[in-house]
Parts: sequence; C-alpha cells; structure tokens
Amino acid sequence: MLNTEHELIKVGSKSGDLKVDIGNVDSIKKMFESIGSFDALISVAGTGHIGSLQTMTDSDFRKTVDSKLMGQVNLVLIGQHYINPSGSFTLTSGSLSHDPVLQTASLSSINAAIDGFVRGAAIELKNAVRINSVSPTVVADSPEYFPFFLGTIPVGMEAVASAYKKSILGAQTGQTYKVW
Amino acid sequence: MLNTEHELIKVGSKSGDLKVDIGNVDSIKKMFESIGSFDALISVAGTGHIGSLQTMTDSDFRKTVDSKLMGQVNLVLIGQHYINPSGSFTLTSGSLSHDPVLQTASLSSINAAIDGFVRGAAIELKNAVRINSVSPTVVADSPEYFPFFLGTIPVGMEAVASAYKKSILGAQTGQTYKVW
Repeated sequence: MLNTEHELIKVGSKSGDLKVDIGNVDSIKKMFESIGSFDALISVAGTGHIGSLQTMTDSDFRKTVDSKLMGQVNLVLIGQHYINPSGSFTLTSGSLSHDPVLQTASLSSINAAIDGFVRGAAIELKNAVRINSVSPTVVADSPEYFPFFLGTIPVGMEAVASAYKKSILGAQTGQTYKVW
Repeated sequence: MLNTEHELIKVGSKSGDLKVDIGNVDSIKKMFESIGSFDALISVAGTGHIGSLQTMTDSDFRKTVDSKLMGQVNLVLIGQHYINPSGSFTLTSGSLSHDPVLQTASLSSINAAIDGFVRGAAIELKNAVRINSVSPTVVADSPEYFPFFLGTIPVGMEAVASAYKKSILGAQTGQTYKVW
C-alpha cells in the first residue's frame, strides 16, 4: 500500500494526524498551512443527503453541495497554492452519477459535478499538477448501503484502492476512474 | 415553433409574462402559484462565474451553484408539485461538462451536475412526469462567447430549439440531448 513508500498524512473530520472541517474554508486553509507543501491529495471526504425527490428541499440538496461538492472543490481551489509541481489531486465521486438509485438525486447530481470539475480544472492547473476522480459504486465494506443498491454487485476495497493509486502514480489528468 | 400549437407562458428575471428570481425559493413558489398547473417547463435560466482557476474562490464557484444549478434544481423540486401528469421538465446544461475551455471550471462542474440530476430525478418523478436536459455548445447568436470557444464550431439556434422540442414532445426521460 501507499504508506510503505510514501509519507502519509491522514486528515479526518474527527480523527487523523490532522483534523479539518471541509465545510469550512478557513479550516481547509489552516490544514494546508500546517502541512506546508505536498505531492498528492486524496479526498474521500463529503457526505450527501438521502431522501425522496418528492420531499426534497433546497436545503436538503445543499447539504450534498456544501459537503461533497464544495468541500472537495475547495480542497483544490485552496490546495493548488500549496501543492508541489507535478503533484496530483484525486477526488471521489461515485457511480450514482450515471447509475442512479432511489433517494439519491442530489448525489447523482453532485457526483457528476465532481467529475465535471475534474475535467474543467485539469486544463487550468499550473506546473504540471494533475487532477482526477475515482467513481466507485457501493463497496463491499459498507453493507449499510446495500439496500439502496439492490442488484448492484459491490466492489472490493482493493479495486477502489487501485483506482486511487492509478490516479496518483499514473500520468493522466482530467480522468474519472470508474470502479463499477 | 411551439407557440403556434401550445399556450406559452414566458418567464424571465427582468421581462416576460411573469418575472421570477430563480435564486430565490419563495420567488419560484410564487411563480408556480400564479401559473397553477402546466404541462411542460423549459428552463434556459442560470448564469455562471467566468474566471481563472488560479484566482477562483468558494464564493466565485457558488455563484454558478446558486444560479445555474440550484435555480434549475429548485424549479423541479418545487415544480413537481404543480406539473400535470405526463408533463415534462427540460433543463439546460452545456458542452463544457465534457469539452472544457479556460476560465469555466465551475461551469464544467455545474453543467455535469444538471445532467446528473436529470438522471437521478428521472427515476423518482411520479405520474409519468419526465425530465431531460439540453446541452448546447456555444450558439451562433452569441458571438460574445466565441473568444472562449476557439476552434469550436458554433451551433445554430434551430438545432438547439429542436433539442428542446425533442425533450418536450418525445417520450424519453433522464436523457441529455447534446447539441455539439
């Protein structure tokens, strides 16, 4: 795995080497200030609203926008000023963008938004910095989500981890690595 | 055109039969209240931030989120309670989702978000209500955008109008009609 050959800094909302609230721009800035420079950022951060379209409101939808979209977008908008040349950003979207299930319309939207942002940002990042996204379907380790993904074959964490490695150690940019 | 065979209600931010501020949920509700029921909604509404990724901030990006994404999403979230059975929603995204140009990373993201929302919402709308998006590239009538789309062949308004007609008069749902 990555931690045998690279120095890893784990950042979480509640645990990790550092803590960050990705819903808060100042918290993200503080995180990058304390890390200094870095070669690769992997984001598996962000939550989304689950609930039927019939009862969905502006503020329900914005929970997904604020966390999974703006949280990850801000990691890039701010992180681009700290990342080393030839570094890479890897964000996480998900299969719901193209393979929707019930109660997750905001995630279908926001997962697609992350992949679209990656394509747009890839042609503007300076100093050979790259950006990709990993788009997994439901993973075998998260049985709590199985009822939403009836008939979907869960993927193993190894396949998902491989996609992140491909993004970081490969040379492509602007790509979405589908794990589904 | 549509106005010879259908009753058209034109709604704009500054002109039209009715006015609406799509950035304001109450304004959208008021619009639907005064229209009552309807068979088809075509949204060509929403603006986006234009500016380089290097200087882009959370609030720049959110201009595109608040207008082009949430404005159109809220037309559906609220409008679903007023639309007639077998009615249709048609939103507008754009080619930047997959064919990015400089200074429009937030639009690459949000255009993709609109198409993703359409796929997610299509499987949840009740009473045979349909939803699609039209994704045009730069149109021949908007030469002010040509400098951003160097090398892109502009499309005629007739081709774009056809895509809206296909969405409204056809039977498909969850689709994105690319005009590029």
